[in-house]
Amino acid sequence: MSTPVSGTEAATVGELGERRLIDRIRARFPTPPGLLPVGIGDDAAVAAPVRGALEVLTTDALVEGVHFNLSYSSFADVGYKALAVNVSDIAAMGATPRLALLSLILPGRMPASGVDALLDGFAEMASSAKVAVAGGNTTRSPADGSGHGPLIVDVALIGSAKPRRVLTRSGGRPGDVLFVTGTIGAAAAGLDWLSAAQRGARPDPDDATLGECVARHRRPAPRLRLGAIAGQTRAASACMDLSDGLADAVTQVAGQSGTGAVIDAAALPIHPGAARWFSSRGRDAVDASLAGGDDYELLFAVPARFAGRFRNVIRHGEGVPVTRIGELTSTRQIVMNRDGRTEPLPAGFVHF
Amino acid sequence: MSTPVSGTEAATVGELGERRLIDRIRARFPTPPGLLPVGIGDDAAVAAPVRGALEVLTTDALVEGVHFNLSYSSFADVGYKALAVNVSDIAAMGATPRLALLSLILPGRMPASGVDALLDGFAEMASSAKVAVAGGNTTRSPADGSGHGPLIVDVALIGSAKPRRVLTRSGGRPGDVLFVTGTIGAAAAGLDWLSAAQRGARPDPDDATLGECVARHRRPAPRLRLGAIAGQTRAASACMDLSDGLADAVTQVAGQSGTGAVIDAAALPIHPGAARWFSSRGRDAVDASLAGGDDYELLFAVPARFAGRFRNVIRHGEGVPVTRIGELTSTRQIVMNRDGRTEPLPAGFVHF
Repeated sequence: MSTPVSGTEAATVGELGERRLIDRIRARFPTPPGLLPVGIGDDAAVAAPVRGALEVLTTDALVEGVHFNLSYSSFADVGYKALAVNVSDIAAMGATPRLALLSLILPGRMPASGVDALLDGFAEMASSAKVAVAGGNTTRSPADGSGHGPLIVDVALIGSAKPRRVLTRSGGRPGDVLFVTGTIGAAAAGLDWLSAAQRGARPDPDDATLGECVARHRRPAPRLRLGAIAGQTRAASACMDLSDGLADAVTQVAGQSGTGAVIDAAALPIHPGAARWFSSRGRDAVDASLAGGDDYELLFAVPARFAGRFRNVIRHGEGVPVTRIGELTSTRQIVMNRDGRTEPLPAGFVHF
Repeated sequence: MSTPVSGTEAATVGELGERRLIDRIRARFPTPPGLLPVGIGDDAAVAAPVRGALEVLTTDALVEGVHFNLSYSSFADVGYKALAVNVSDIAAMGATPRLALLSLILPGRMPASGVDALLDGFAEMASSAKVAVAGGNTTRSPADGSGHGPLIVDVALIGSAKPRRVLTRSGGRPGDVLFVTGTIGAAAAGLDWLSAAQRGARPDPDDATLGECVARHRRPAPRLRLGAIAGQTRAASACMDLSDGLADAVTQVAGQSGTGAVIDAAALPIHPGAARWFSSRGRDAVDASLAGGDDYELLFAVPARFAGRFRNVIRHGEGVPVTRIGELTSTRQIVMNRDGRTEPLPAGFVHF
């Protein structure tokens, strides 16, 4: 006695049309009236600002064929991650996210159920990060030779921070200790496994730690609470997220702070699944984990006199481990100590 | 005695790489320190809010093959228009734009000089609308079968408006008079001409009014001043921009205001070049101009008691004509009076 599927139910984005798409998005993200006097459905949204706070603004896009592959990630994963990577940028400023603008560029052939799943994943991250969807835009993705344009989820995220509580990349000083949250290398290992497994048509990994790596690639966990508390308590001098890997983050923070840096290879919190996976593939786990992007952990620089404050931040971090990995130096070199030798830090992730 | 081009000068986006792209964008849009304590180059930008104002937020994307064709528009036109369409949305709320986030999705083969031209066009509109570029993102467009992914310029724009000075689509009441700025049909006629001319490989039109239509398609002029003054002086009950054409705008404003509308065909300010072009193609100029999108004029609903205030808005509109075209009604029908007959308003532009 199943209900027959209605013949008028739209099966694809193309059949759904823009109006019904926007109605669907509006139904999924009802406007909270106090926060948003005008929500989705007008020329623009209108929001009440946070009194006495600065605005913190970021934008980041996930592009099919560049940042994700629908053979490896579900539509819900893509929606979740598109917001998560932006939340990570706000967290890295020591700020708190508030309002998202969601710009969807959709292939006409995408199933309507895929849009719903994408919005569900986005809503899951939005709920977890206490973000309201203020507005957005939908447009068609141009058909290529195969008739299928890329799916693109582009997000702008607005957060707030109190004056003098913002964490930039440039505030580090020689002698500041470098800390990293969580583990590194997991997302890169997960993607690598998916790519290898795809070729062999294997199911999800049996190995639980490798399963964590795959999950990290699909749904990174932005370190919102650690970032926000470090900002509010002024426990760090600089911060950056690991979107392009730890090697890149150390290079950026040191470069923008006008310092050098030294990293201790033995101290790096390499994810155990990543360590095993990279070793099994004959790759150096340290180099691969330093270069691998997409972990969305945070790198903090902490002046020695703020060590107590920073311990307090860690205590409120809901059990996320935080590891001391090195320090900023007064030279301009970025180096790693490994097995008694000092070597240049391997390069990070390159986009183009 | 020309200077030889340096062999190390990057010719394409792919050769330039992400870092040098961001450096180029940062150089093009220097951070105004008072307004933006942190600009391009950190995890997120940080802006000082406007005291006592609401935030007005919008996002809109231009997609190659959907919204523009590089045979018809230059890279500079695309950059200009990508910001202009967002400025138009902010103007339609009666608000003033402040800060843009620029998300570029770039084909690897795009010439580096094309990026510079795109940024120049964007900067021209930014300067005209007094918008600062707070930050952005660059990513690669995925190669399709031909090795060339679409160019996409996605913009989020943040403006401000005083409380109770915002113009929504839903504030209209029966009896409010409908006014439209400028002329309609020009952008659609310009695009139609370009498409026809392309097939015949013709140069730009000799006819000056048709030239204006082509220019309107390439570089629409958002009615920022008229929108902002109407908002500040509370001279209108509702407003919307004509991104999807006048028929769509009348339908949206009436629908969201819970009213009907009646339009007078003889009063419509059809651009003379559009009128001639559509007639020469055997199309009905009224229907084509009502349905044609991309004009980025504003539709206002004005209560009879605010007629004096609204005349004052028009006086400050820098010579942009404003035309009375009809009124909102207490029925739920959207109709047009034409040649003594009343007919349903033709449908607007459909995206998917």
